[in-house]
Amino acid sequence: MTLTHRHCPDCGAPCEERIPEDDHRTRAVCTVCANIHYVNPKVVVGCIVEKDGNLLLARRDIEPARGRWTFPAGYLETGESSFDGAARETLEETEARTRMLGLHAVLDIPHIGQVYTVFRAELVGDHFAPTPESTEVELVAPERIPWSELAFPSVATALRLWDEDRRSCRHRVHTGSVIWSGEGSRFDLARYRLEDHVSH
Amino acid sequence: MTLTHRHCPDCGAPCEERIPEDDHRTRAVCTVCANIHYVNPKVVVGCIVEKDGNLLLARRDIEPARGRWTFPAGYLETGESSFDGAARETLEETEARTRMLGLHAVLDIPHIGQVYTVFRAELVGDHFAPTPESTEVELVAPERIPWSELAFPSVATALRLWDEDRRSCRHRVHTGSVIWSGEGSRFDLARYRLEDHVSH
Repeated sequence: MTLTHRHCPDCGAPCEERIPEDDHRTRAVCTVCANIHYVNPKVVVGCIVEKDGNLLLARRDIEPARGRWTFPAGYLETGESSFDGAARETLEETEARTRMLGLHAVLDIPHIGQVYTVFRAELVGDHFAPTPESTEVELVAPERIPWSELAFPSVATALRLWDEDRRSCRHRVHTGSVIWSGEGSRFDLARYRLEDHVSH
Repeated sequence: MTLTHRHCPDCGAPCEERIPEDDHRTRAVCTVCANIHYVNPKVVVGCIVEKDGNLLLARRDIEPARGRWTFPAGYLETGESSFDGAARETLEETEARTRMLGLHAVLDIPHIGQVYTVFRAELVGDHFAPTPESTEVELVAPERIPWSELAFPSVATALRLWDEDRRSCRHRVHTGSVIWSGEGSRFDLARYRLEDHVSH
């Protein structure tokens, strides 16, 4: 583990790496006040917004992956529910208002400590527009998803599952892990495994 | 917001609360190195372990809610998938080994900044036992779930949804928020809403 806290957020003294009593993992522990500082995965919430069979994609104007395409997504904030967070990100990135259709996928990305929770939603009204976070926002036909220009393996995985469901006319809730290939472009489609747990 | 970082984990200097440029929320920002320190919801992963129609419950021997009943659950760790985390917690708390059956629920608990991801699993083999974290571990018939002695509203909510699915012979994936009642016992059954999920 790289030391996640060089200093203690409570008292400012240096931290050290060690396994606390009754624990099984190395943590950052304050050398003065002995407080333990945990680092846990973060939740990214996103929204596949549908309208008349098309879906809403945005071209990112922020790093990482500036210039690449994604559906709206971002970090869940404390105090909001997962769908409220996904809807907020959608509004911030595309000005689109949404109504939830259902949970689409919970994808673990263990190598970067993220859980990616993706909902399906319908566009409320007709409005969407570029924003400070997105240079272009478009309703795209499923056949025109720019697979080679997607921002992240998790985005590609979620869209591939969505497209498969669309073709089979049956939307399911998917869980699984997006596995880092370790080689090649970071924008390769990730191998994902649906660990034999597609839920109905 | 209460100041989540009194000191900067990077340099140890005092933090202040302010809204960073291009942000919309108050964050802890270092007064010296200007680094921003985010606090995001944590993921709790749990497992409803089934065996011959019964489910595995453990009586907690750790605070909070020591002495009350729960299915195995705990914080997801960086580097593990959600189900791997749920299976690890199950092993640590009950010595039970599990095979995933499916995702059961993703419950937001916004007032405490948690996302509660619950899987259904089957017990592999017959072994389970008390552990340092659980004074008792039992396979309980659904009719004998100790509703008034459950550890947390989220546990009660997840089990109520599981019991409803069991009665209707149809397991679904549930999403919604566990809402804090604000009054009465913290162990009241929480009201949950499977929200109409319209963004504002």
